[in-house]
Amino acid sequence: MVPPVGRLAWTLIPSCWLHLIATVMRRVIMFGPLPTRFFITSGYGEASTELNAFDAALLNAGIGNTNLIKLSSILPPGCLEIEPYELPKGSMVPLAYGELTSSRPGTLISAAVAVGIPVDPSAPGLIMECNRIGAPEVCEQASREMVREGMEIIRGLRIREIRSISASLTVRKVGAVFAAVVLCP
Amino acid sequence: MVPPVGRLAWTLIPSCWLHLIATVMRRVIMFGPLPTRFFITSGYGEASTELNAFDAALLNAGIGNTNLIKLSSILPPGCLEIEPYELPKGSMVPLAYGELTSSRPGTLISAAVAVGIPVDPSAPGLIMECNRIGAPEVCEQASREMVREGMEIIRGLRIREIRSISASLTVRKVGAVFAAVVLCP
Amino acid sequence: MVPPVGRLAWTLIPSCWLHLIATVMRRVIMFGPLPTRFFITSGYGEASTELNAFDAALLNAGIGNTNLIKLSSILPPGCLEIEPYELPKGSMVPLAYGELTSSRPGTLISAAVAVGIPVDPSAPGLIMECNRIGAPEVCEQASREMVREGMEIIRGLRIREIRSISASLTVRKVGAVFAAVVLCP
Repeated sequence: MVPPVGRLAWTLIPSCWLHLIATVMRRVIMFGPLPTRFFITSGYGEASTELNAFDAALLNAGIGNTNLIKLSSILPPGCLEIEPYELPKGSMVPLAYGELTSSRPGTLISAAVAVGIPVDPSAPGLIMECNRIGAPEVCEQASREMVREGMEIIRGLRIREIRSISASLTVRKVGAVFAAVVLCP
Repeated sequence: MVPPVGRLAWTLIPSCWLHLIATVMRRVIMFGPLPTRFFITSGYGEASTELNAFDAALLNAGIGNTNLIKLSSILPPGCLEIEPYELPKGSMVPLAYGELTSSRPGTLISAAVAVGIPVDPSAPGLIMECNRIGAPEVCEQASREMVREGMEIIRGLRIREIRSISASLTVRKVGAVFAAVVLCP
Repeated sequence: MVPPVGRLAWTLIPSCWLHLIATVMRRVIMFGPLPTRFFITSGYGEASTELNAFDAALLNAGIGNTNLIKLSSILPPGCLEIEPYELPKGSMVPLAYGELTSSRPGTLISAAVAVGIPVDPSAPGLIMECNRIGAPEVCEQASREMVREGMEIIRGLRIREIRSISASLTVRKVGAVFAAVVLCP
């Protein structure tokens, strides 16, 4: 099963080194490496099935050719916002997102995310997502309120800024909306 | 907290090296390493609870002793199909899957996945999953149709081949079906 | 896009080494590294929305400032139990959990997890989660029974010990309960 190049690697690296590298890697890999940057993005899509509509919304948001790994939504301390960029195709992307699909023509659907950035750079930020039938402003506002409650009231953290984004769509046949905070290395 | 061998590693590796290794690793780990191979598998199971039935279906599919990490379903460019093989026990396995559990005796349940492999080896493939009450052929056909729509219509990619698999079960007490595309290093 | 320190790393490490390291890393990263330790924890929380209540329950359980990656629940062979400890803020934490949120004042909600440790240290353990309206003892007992069925009946493994934990809450406004087995490097 081991391809030739892999077999070569195993013989060239002395086994003690392998052990050291594995030990270091185990530490860094599990529970990390912490993302150092993030971007926010959103999208919507129409197709003939809910799964295809969701896929179309991801493509519209610019991350449709990656594998999403859904997180429970903490912004690592010191994470900086960047412009969305094209991620390697097929890569596994940690993110927090809100999404909604509907197959009821005429329905206005919305999804939003908000991320709170704390004043203290050593504190974590909080990401909240929201989806609902109705206007995107209401949905985005709700996600911002949840960030405020989670950071100020529940964690007692001062907020420097809340960044948020939403997407909405009046469904024609089968539609989906999607909004995400994408964490990057 | 650091076990002796770990402590030794930290002292043997000069800190500049640690930094270099960490930098390289961060790049490779997050958003990668891209899987280079995949296999498809499916299974079914019966037990006394839905969770146990799902577990039994995973075992029947040959991946019941691993930790599944559910992905949003892109096949990385150039990924090659291999035969299913026994994954290390307890390892964390990225995959896309369809599944259905039911506790209504006599119900025919089905799950399927399909994966589209593009003509262009630098393009991503698409994985679609389906589950429904009814015959597995219908379910598998539906997942293949979704792959076709997502690749040909939505992405404008030519398909070289669609691979698919399904599982079905007429529930006796509590049953589960499962079908997956497993991504491998 | 590459920060200066990253660029330095790429020039200092000869490319053959990069290749070797990448090969080793690919093996270790995907499907591993296997967790070697675990701890169990639980919590509950109240807030004004379900998402905030869930977040408060995570904080109460001591893992509210991390990013949870939900697994399908196998304890890697030889994994040892440790005391809960504070995980790095924002880190991505693999775990299996049960949770329940409710916005019906007066409801008693419970969540539990159980993990079976096999007699044979080379065999995997099984984690089962449960959530329900009602007393935590019933919920915890149900999760223990599922572990017993999955290990003894379905896998034919002898169990050395089953460890379990639960949380419960009588909802005032909007409440959440949470119980988890957290896997550690």
